[in-house]
Amino acid sequence: MKQQNPVRLTMVGGGSWATALIKILSENNISIKWWLRKESDAEHIKKFGHNPSYLSDVLINTRKVKVCTRIKDAFRDSDYVVLAVPAAFVSDALSGIKPEHFAGKCVISAIKGMIPSANQLVTDWVREQYDVPANRIAVIAGPCHAEEVALEKQSYLTIASQDVACADEVAAMLSCRFVQTSSVDDIYGIEYSAVMKNIIALACGITHGLGYGDNFQAVLVSNAMQEIKRFVDAIFPKHRDLSGSAYLGDLLVTAYSPFSRNRTFGTLIGRGYTIQSAQMEMNMIAEGYYAVKSIHAINQQFRVHMPITDAVYNILYERASPTLEMEGVKRLLN
Amino acid sequence: MKQQNPVRLTMVGGGSWATALIKILSENNISIKWWLRKESDAEHIKKFGHNPSYLSDVLINTRKVKVCTRIKDAFRDSDYVVLAVPAAFVSDALSGIKPEHFAGKCVISAIKGMIPSANQLVTDWVREQYDVPANRIAVIAGPCHAEEVALEKQSYLTIASQDVACADEVAAMLSCRFVQTSSVDDIYGIEYSAVMKNIIALACGITHGLGYGDNFQAVLVSNAMQEIKRFVDAIFPKHRDLSGSAYLGDLLVTAYSPFSRNRTFGTLIGRGYTIQSAQMEMNMIAEGYYAVKSIHAINQQFRVHMPITDAVYNILYERASPTLEMEGVKRLLN
Repeated sequence: MKQQNPVRLTMVGGGSWATALIKILSENNISIKWWLRKESDAEHIKKFGHNPSYLSDVLINTRKVKVCTRIKDAFRDSDYVVLAVPAAFVSDALSGIKPEHFAGKCVISAIKGMIPSANQLVTDWVREQYDVPANRIAVIAGPCHAEEVALEKQSYLTIASQDVACADEVAAMLSCRFVQTSSVDDIYGIEYSAVMKNIIALACGITHGLGYGDNFQAVLVSNAMQEIKRFVDAIFPKHRDLSGSAYLGDLLVTAYSPFSRNRTFGTLIGRGYTIQSAQMEMNMIAEGYYAVKSIHAINQQFRVHMPITDAVYNILYERASPTLEMEGVKRLLN
Repeated sequence: MKQQNPVRLTMVGGGSWATALIKILSENNISIKWWLRKESDAEHIKKFGHNPSYLSDVLINTRKVKVCTRIKDAFRDSDYVVLAVPAAFVSDALSGIKPEHFAGKCVISAIKGMIPSANQLVTDWVREQYDVPANRIAVIAGPCHAEEVALEKQSYLTIASQDVACADEVAAMLSCRFVQTSSVDDIYGIEYSAVMKNIIALACGITHGLGYGDNFQAVLVSNAMQEIKRFVDAIFPKHRDLSGSAYLGDLLVTAYSPFSRNRTFGTLIGRGYTIQSAQMEMNMIAEGYYAVKSIHAINQQFRVHMPITDAVYNILYERASPTLEMEGVKRLLN
């Protein structure tokens, strides 16, 4: 980042991933307007330089980062907009924003979920709702827990866009002493994989909660990689190697890490919690809960063989027994 | 397994994997001669029906399993020989055994390592040393911790042989109420992957010991899958999908599980233990320690790009600094 004038960027969202991205972006010559919904959080950040609700250890450089709670203020005079709220809330967060507010801006989705009301990828929804051209849309992917970014643990991000030049721009902005970035053009493959890995993490949690062990989980994850590939290849045929870190790595960090909220949510379900009580037990939204509904709906058209996704859907939306559904999955794995 | 007369099988080895396999095989109509080196362990098993040294909770069905400490006795009148000692000790274990003792027998390798003195896969070594035909050699692979087999946790095994009919026979013998099996013909790919996953587990342990986190490990494992594929495809070109559970799953269970001795050994090295003190700290052999030397030697001829394997080799055999070697790896990952 050698340019004289700072890049001007809008961050939409006040959660842990948004906070981690603020930390990364602040390492470079970027001037940030940070929109948060909660007035009290914004005030706290202004006063104390810390987000009181998420990753509160992270020091916010308030010379570079200006917080605000009015979304239109946050959009003014910026070249990039990063969306980092849960997919279910993105429409609310952008209320009042019209296509003209997005004009000339590059949109970067840091959301690993689908718009539940539309069963759409976030980037497809943005493109349609706000007339943002596909070559000015990118997604941030890769195995990256916000908690480890806060600790400055070495991490990797993959930036995907249909336009690799756009991905390269964004990759440069996110590259810093503890984050390495790379760019690819398979935005659909990356985005669907990111969505589906949350469903698989739910399945890992459910089976863990039921008492299955590490041997089983390794086989479940291997079969899940094949399930993801079948689905993504059916929707967007393209030569892709899913052992890349934005695909496999992202699944691993979610399926195996104690930080994963999808796995935790699944574990509660496997142990016999109702969906409502599991949601109350947790402080964050498990994206996979919404994702499985959208992916299941989309697959009504494609009819890809997806036993793991189907089982998670049946457990969460059809009141099917976790024990019986996973018995069925167990027989199909190899 | 519906046949009247039991299958007659020789088990060579008294460790945890041998004990787990005894437990699985005893579920079927198989009469087993179990060779162990240690006289006192053999006596204990005869008397009490438990292996005092490994998986001592497992009940040995002494009606089906006869223990002995003379290898030639164990070989008499059997149709199958399972090798389940560490690769470094297989030659010792078979001392006195000649090609004629193997005549007519099917050899099943349960060893995930290479013969260190010969830099050879166990199955290649058996074929050459004892004139066993390739169509009577199989390997047992798949993500399967012995400790979980002891607990009867649902597990999966993949049996590979150049002759799928041979793999099918063995798969039937190992299938039971808590183990599902499948058969494939890619014996070289499966065996090399099984060997290399121990090297990768060492790398995971080393970086963990150095303080790298889950984000990094997910990227390391993704890149490792690509490294394994490059190597195996160079040695035995064949269309193979490494997301199968015998490849990826086996790597995952080793790289992520607390039971993995290779990961534990690597962690000690990463924390600054010398090789000798790390070996003393542990009660078992980390196969990866020998494997990396053989794979490195073999790759002198193929010159496959293997940064992770090279780093582990340099750390363990060239006294290279774990910190610096992993800094080098870090820059090459994506």
